[in-house]
Amino acid sequence: DPSLKVFTLNSNKGLAAEITEHIGVPLGKSSVTRFSDGEVQINIEESIRGCDVYLIQSTSAPANEHIMELLIMIDALKRASARTINVVMPYYGYARQDRKARAREPITAKLVANLITTAGATRLLTLDLHATQIQGFFDIPVDQLMGVPILADYFAEKQLDDIVIVSPDHGGVVRARKMADRLKAPIAIIDKRRPKPNVSEVMNIVGNIEGKTAIIIDDIIDTAGTITLAANALVEHGAKEVYACCTHPVLSGPAMERINNSKIKELVVTNSIVLDDEKKSEKVTELSVAALMAEAIIRVHEHASVSTLFD
Amino acid sequence: DPSLKVFTLNSNKGLAAEITEHIGVPLGKSSVTRFSDGEVQINIEESIRGCDVYLIQSTSAPANEHIMELLIMIDALKRASARTINVVMPYYGYARQDRKARAREPITAKLVANLITTAGATRLLTLDLHATQIQGFFDIPVDQLMGVPILADYFAEKQLDDIVIVSPDHGGVVRARKMADRLKAPIAIIDKRRPKPNVSEVMNIVGNIEGKTAIIIDDIIDTAGTITLAANALVEHGAKEVYACCTHPVLSGPAMERINNSKIKELVVTNSIVLDDEKKSEKVTELSVAALMAEAIIRVHEHASVSTLFD
Ligand SMILES: Nc1ncnc2c1ncn2[C@@H]1O[C@H](COP(=O)(O)O)[C@@H](O)[C@H]1O
Ligand SMILES: Nc1ncnc2c1ncn2[C@@H]1O[C@H](COP(=O)(O)O)[C@@H](O)[C@H]1O
Repeated sequence: DPSLKVFTLNSNKGLAAEITEHIGVPLGKSSVTRFSDGEVQINIEESIRGCDVYLIQSTSAPANEHIMELLIMIDALKRASARTINVVMPYYGYARQDRKARAREPITAKLVANLITTAGATRLLTLDLHATQIQGFFDIPVDQLMGVPILADYFAEKQLDDIVIVSPDHGGVVRARKMADRLKAPIAIIDKRRPKPNVSEVMNIVGNIEGKTAIIIDDIIDTAGTITLAANALVEHGAKEVYACCTHPVLSGPAMERINNSKIKELVVTNSIVLDDEKKSEKVTELSVAALMAEAIIRVHEHASVSTLFD
Repeated sequence: DPSLKVFTLNSNKGLAAEITEHIGVPLGKSSVTRFSDGEVQINIEESIRGCDVYLIQSTSAPANEHIMELLIMIDALKRASARTINVVMPYYGYARQDRKARAREPITAKLVANLITTAGATRLLTLDLHATQIQGFFDIPVDQLMGVPILADYFAEKQLDDIVIVSPDHGGVVRARKMADRLKAPIAIIDKRRPKPNVSEVMNIVGNIEGKTAIIIDDIIDTAGTITLAANALVEHGAKEVYACCTHPVLSGPAMERINNSKIKELVVTNSIVLDDEKKSEKVTELSVAALMAEAIIRVHEHASVSTLFD
């Protein structure tokens, strides 16, 4: 279908190549470079008049650079008469600033939604938003894909015995439940409590993990503090082995050091965010979301349902 | 007046301190830092409910970082119930992408205008826009200040003999004319022509410069190619001495090397963009726009005319 065009920016070029291969279209020709002063310079190098454009970009670190590249490219596509501009965003940055946690804070996740819409996007296709509410920050259609099936299938193939799926906090129980259903396993929850102010947190575990292989699941692993403390607590409480997995490997600051020094046997992530060389480790396994995203693009383009992708 | 609050972001902290001193108000309390993954974290640390907020930020390099800081701060101010949000932007980045020079290019200057408005700004106070048309990219009021009087006054004090004001290209003639009027001097124009394709440009000079002290004026000096070639051509054609000046010292890439090795005796700039240490040079003189901006803020706040600042 010559009206379907896939373009990419700089955050996930490898994933974009995989996606276009799956779909069977060439990657749209464009150049995204910098002027001498660092301002973004974009040229779209083929006609897209009347086309449905799918533009791949995660707003991973450096988030501000990736957001501005995205907005400028959307502007260029709009002015070049694209029929629809579908932003394919494997990782939605600033998603944790989704509410005023304190007085006089911004709600940057909403700001970014407004910026993307103002620039001219007509649809967002994304993966595991940190808060599902972010869909409501948009007045354009948002399709949200899920990483759980990809992560679960990987662990199913490993044929581990006697597993338990662990949520590292109360906010992640629904996600852990989905994973557990796919793997026909029970769940457990890490229940952090601070008994008194200025006393360190106690890691209480709700559910039976004794002698079991624990798989901790989260959406984002950033500094890896939560997940490595959880892993150590699980081992202390009698878990046989601990695996961890997440959709979005932010892995900033002390993350890799903490993971490498932790009781985690293997960390399984997706390529929604590119792993720089210093984030590669024998402990880290990367799974691709390319087939999922490619299939979703085809369905959106054929006006078919994206939700049935998870049946 | 307690309803007037001045805040700053990270691009021009020194200038902001000077401006608040001129106005006689304390700088608004806020913190603009980064989370571990590089996302901007902003906290406004005093009430601004019902206040008129003036927010100082140039979108100089790193432009994308400075733009995102600005948008996020505007979002926070809006949600904290500011009555008006007046963006004070000494340097408006992306101003050179103000039209489609080629097919399928973005118009980033217009995109940025839309982003600032979408975030919630109610007015823009800026200095020497690269193209005056950018005022029309906004549907909120825009007040544009001029650097020419500050630059002209500096040269007037030097009491140079027999000066001529030089525009480095045809686009800058109006600006050179304004400078010349202030200094009661004649003008000249560098008229670049490429006689044939693939033949280097010829620097033709329109106007009499022989034996005179030439002062080249431009709005932005970026890589300094134009200005240093112009200076050398002026000397070759018999100018006695060459000074250069501009409002916005972008000075990227080879700029400082070119300037230091050129025939330019002194380069006079304003602090609309901070000069990093590697851009400091014995040849470079920095003038402050603090008094001008402070006076403009006071006038805007008192609903007085800003244009009379230049009488
Ligand atoms: N990039 C970030 N890195 C770390 N913490 C963040 C970031 N963005 C927002 N937050 C904070 O994370 C909290 C929200 O995370 P959560 O409770 O997991 O939804 C809020 O208190 C935010 O201030
Ligand atoms: N940041 C930048 N650095 C250098 N050139 C730029 C930049 N932004 C835009 N341009 C180009 O500068 C030209 C406009 O400059 P001007 O003719 O001086 O208005 C256009 O051809 C743009 O492609």
